[in-house]
Amino acid sequence: MQFTGAHILSIDQFSQDDVEHLFQVADAMEPFARRALRTRVLDGAILSNLFFEPSTRTRVSFGCAFNLLGGHVRETTEIKASSISKGESLYDTARVISGYSDIIAMRHPVAGSVEEFARASRVPVINAGDGPAEHPSQALLDLYTIRKELRIDGPLEKLRIAMVGDLKHGRTVHSLGKLLCLYRNIHFTLVSPRELAMPAYIVDLLRSKGHTVSETDSMEAGLHNCDTVYLTRIQEERFVNQAEADLYRGRFRLNQAIYTQHCKPNTVIMHPLPRDSRAEANELDNDLNQHPSLAIFRQTDNGVLVRMALFALTLGVADQVARHVEEVPWYTAKRFRNPPPL
Amino acid sequence: MQFTGAHILSIDQFSQDDVEHLFQVADAMEPFARRALRTRVLDGAILSNLFFEPSTRTRVSFGCAFNLLGGHVRETTEIKASSISKGESLYDTARVISGYSDIIAMRHPVAGSVEEFARASRVPVINAGDGPAEHPSQALLDLYTIRKELRIDGPLEKLRIAMVGDLKHGRTVHSLGKLLCLYRNIHFTLVSPRELAMPAYIVDLLRSKGHTVSETDSMEAGLHNCDTVYLTRIQEERFVNQAEADLYRGRFRLNQAIYTQHCKPNTVIMHPLPRDSRAEANELDNDLNQHPSLAIFRQTDNGVLVRMALFALTLGVADQVARHVEEVPWYTAKRFRNPPPL
Amino acid sequence: MQFTGAHILSIDQFSQDDVEHLFQVADAMEPFARRALRTRVLDGAILSNLFFEPSTRTRVSFGCAFNLLGGHVRETTEIKASSISKGESLYDTARVISGYSDIIAMRHPVAGSVEEFARASRVPVINAGDGPAEHPSQALLDLYTIRKELRIDGPLEKLRIAMVGDLKHGRTVHSLGKLLCLYRNIHFTLVSPRELAMPAYIVDLLRSKGHTVSETDSMEAGLHNCDTVYLTRIQEERFVNQAEADLYRGRFRLNQAIYTQHCKPNTVIMHPLPRDSRAEANELDNDLNQHPSLAIFRQTDNGVLVRMALFALTLGVADQVARHVEEVPWYTAKRFRNPPPL
Repeated sequence: MQFTGAHILSIDQFSQDDVEHLFQVADAMEPFARRALRTRVLDGAILSNLFFEPSTRTRVSFGCAFNLLGGHVRETTEIKASSISKGESLYDTARVISGYSDIIAMRHPVAGSVEEFARASRVPVINAGDGPAEHPSQALLDLYTIRKELRIDGPLEKLRIAMVGDLKHGRTVHSLGKLLCLYRNIHFTLVSPRELAMPAYIVDLLRSKGHTVSETDSMEAGLHNCDTVYLTRIQEERFVNQAEADLYRGRFRLNQAIYTQHCKPNTVIMHPLPRDSRAEANELDNDLNQHPSLAIFRQTDNGVLVRMALFALTLGVADQVARHVEEVPWYTAKRFRNPPPL
Repeated sequence: MQFTGAHILSIDQFSQDDVEHLFQVADAMEPFARRALRTRVLDGAILSNLFFEPSTRTRVSFGCAFNLLGGHVRETTEIKASSISKGESLYDTARVISGYSDIIAMRHPVAGSVEEFARASRVPVINAGDGPAEHPSQALLDLYTIRKELRIDGPLEKLRIAMVGDLKHGRTVHSLGKLLCLYRNIHFTLVSPRELAMPAYIVDLLRSKGHTVSETDSMEAGLHNCDTVYLTRIQEERFVNQAEADLYRGRFRLNQAIYTQHCKPNTVIMHPLPRDSRAEANELDNDLNQHPSLAIFRQTDNGVLVRMALFALTLGVADQVARHVEEVPWYTAKRFRNPPPL
Repeated sequence: MQFTGAHILSIDQFSQDDVEHLFQVADAMEPFARRALRTRVLDGAILSNLFFEPSTRTRVSFGCAFNLLGGHVRETTEIKASSISKGESLYDTARVISGYSDIIAMRHPVAGSVEEFARASRVPVINAGDGPAEHPSQALLDLYTIRKELRIDGPLEKLRIAMVGDLKHGRTVHSLGKLLCLYRNIHFTLVSPRELAMPAYIVDLLRSKGHTVSETDSMEAGLHNCDTVYLTRIQEERFVNQAEADLYRGRFRLNQAIYTQHCKPNTVIMHPLPRDSRAEANELDNDLNQHPSLAIFRQTDNGVLVRMALFALTLGVADQVARHVEEVPWYTAKRFRNPPPL
């Protein structure tokens, strides 16, 4: 892929080389994210954060990544509050907003809408999630995290990953599955209620690429011998009604006792967040918060690196970052310290 | 007008010389808006974008214009979420917010409220729309666009303009009409349902300045021989109820076939946006999206230039912009390319 | 207190020396806030403004203070729009957002929630109000204002202050009372309806520190001979129902006539804002807007100085501000001019 000027809409755009290239750039962003240094390479550039569906974490992550490169961020978060409610088409919104911006990160509840928007945009568009469809930067940060946690240098192979929960609606597991197709000899264990199973087209895709897939509705069985367990929330906002979602909430729960009994030591624990910590759900228990293999907050930290890399590459400044470097004069000592006890 | 330190509240403040001066400054902003260069002249300055009524386009345009000059933007978009709902007066809000800001752009649903606010403000206030009353930067960008599209250098004369749609509620046509009074020998064709006609005081004003005005409820007749057609949306939010607005939506529609049959070649097509592209309205059809005379997105692009000029002039830095110029290191190639096919 | 790296959660953290130190730094911020100079000491730093309860004034004040030091601001204002509504714990939100930020200002409707959040945060957290509990920067700016208005250099003593209104729910009077405990020989006159009296534990605290306290439900009596009158709004959002709040609105009202009759000359008039200017409340009448002793807008101006000082101290750059100073090229003449007549 030619990154410069590209829209980042789907994991399908990425070759293995593209991923390796992106991750090298993400590695180079680390001193800026942990505040050893600061850079002004995008000083004066404007990101439009266009969120037609709420997402604090993803929105702030994109905004922060752009600020870390020196740029300005203009945000729109109110869908009803916007011209859309006056009958404006995505085409018009894209033509207009792209005249105000150097790059756009966009989330929308409708699958395909970000691509439709991007076709009319005059600046690169990064898909920050289009309903149940794609969320490419999430899949990339997940893979980046897996490799960092497992200390894999270069392409990963022979990974054993368990995906647990609402595999039907969870776009992060769809995208991560597709992204892992770029690599070899991966074993997927898919743990879900039968009704929330991974869509067949994705299972078929994984198998067609030579990976092995086993499906189960027993979490304990699924955890056996995996390197990484990737938990997900029941995506209640994608269900027709709350009552149906309630049937599944709390079905699978990982906690300290189950981890100790069923996982091999150092199994990496991941979750795309937010995790549902209410008693009736609690798919990932707080009693694991201090566990060294709990990678969920390193995941969100890595998200900043990956998004900085996407901005730097699509705006063509990845090789210029070092030319705009300065010292950080302010206090940063606790930034990446270990979590305090609850 | 002495621009430096002035509030920009109404088109009535502008003389012909003021407009010419503003447009020269706007011209000088073009390299920054299209990213040939960047400037830091307002680095460290703070714009408060105070929107008591939603408007994605106008809000982002003001914010982007300020960022392009190097400044910070602080936004308030939630009217219910604000102190106003606790009984705070506009006077108090103005005293407080003007202590936090170097300049304020404000939109409010009530006519006259921005002026009331400005009287108490300690920093310049730009009216970004006060209900049905004024929206001076829109009128200025419209006039700037007309001149650019018609390649007029210097004061315009003998323009033939058709205004179409909800001329009763559309503040953009009111303001543009008043602004055009500064020039000579203009022919206005006002196309609207009789019930949504241009207010009599504006028609009288136009005539008193020596312009000719014809009114009709036939769009086809109105399009005849004009240089510019300015379409508007039925302003449904200004109607007492939706049913009444629905009576008029879709009454006038410009599309490729009607344009070809009734307009002379190169008639400039304008619209203040958002255009209502829903089937029941569709006042400006998407089949004209690739038409070279469709100026609606050049209009919004020009809005950034005009707002940059307003900021630079009211903050007294118009002649200092060039002293803070730097290269743009990032990718900008597609920024102003032609629109892609739908 | 060691300011660098500290969370600022409560007035209880402050010794008299801490307050004196903070106020010296606040004094040094004045040239930047009134735009004689600008500084870039926090250029590249990121403040997360995390407001789980609306507050235009406090939110913009924190954001502006950070911009004045050169930093970026990322905002989250939509509580329902956030991960919280998907069951995310404060612990998770804190772990995630602190990975995106150099410092966080947080408001939340629930007492104690900011402290809970801060325990999990990897960067300093400033409490911008947690429900009925604490709002330390407000108490600090109030004390800073009292001293400036009364032209007191160094620790204040023998102050006579009247607090008026909803002393039960008003956290600003609670915090200010506690903060004044650091000083000596203060006389408090507490004016409220009996049902909205200052909580007994605060009255006991004041007395235990050697201060004198008198309580009354007559405002006229309470105003007698005080140096400062601190008015408050009926905090209707803290009442069980609107009807109960309505019982008390409008009970105490200060206006020009009452001031002239009952206050000694130069009595400083303060209010934490917003003041409720609706006819049925109007606790502080607009006929005092031009009175030289009306300090309410100098209070909000001072809030910027105090918040700049808190940022500079917690981020450890208070002694580096002067190293990043530049001229201000834009118009600032009206910024601190006297209020115009209504």
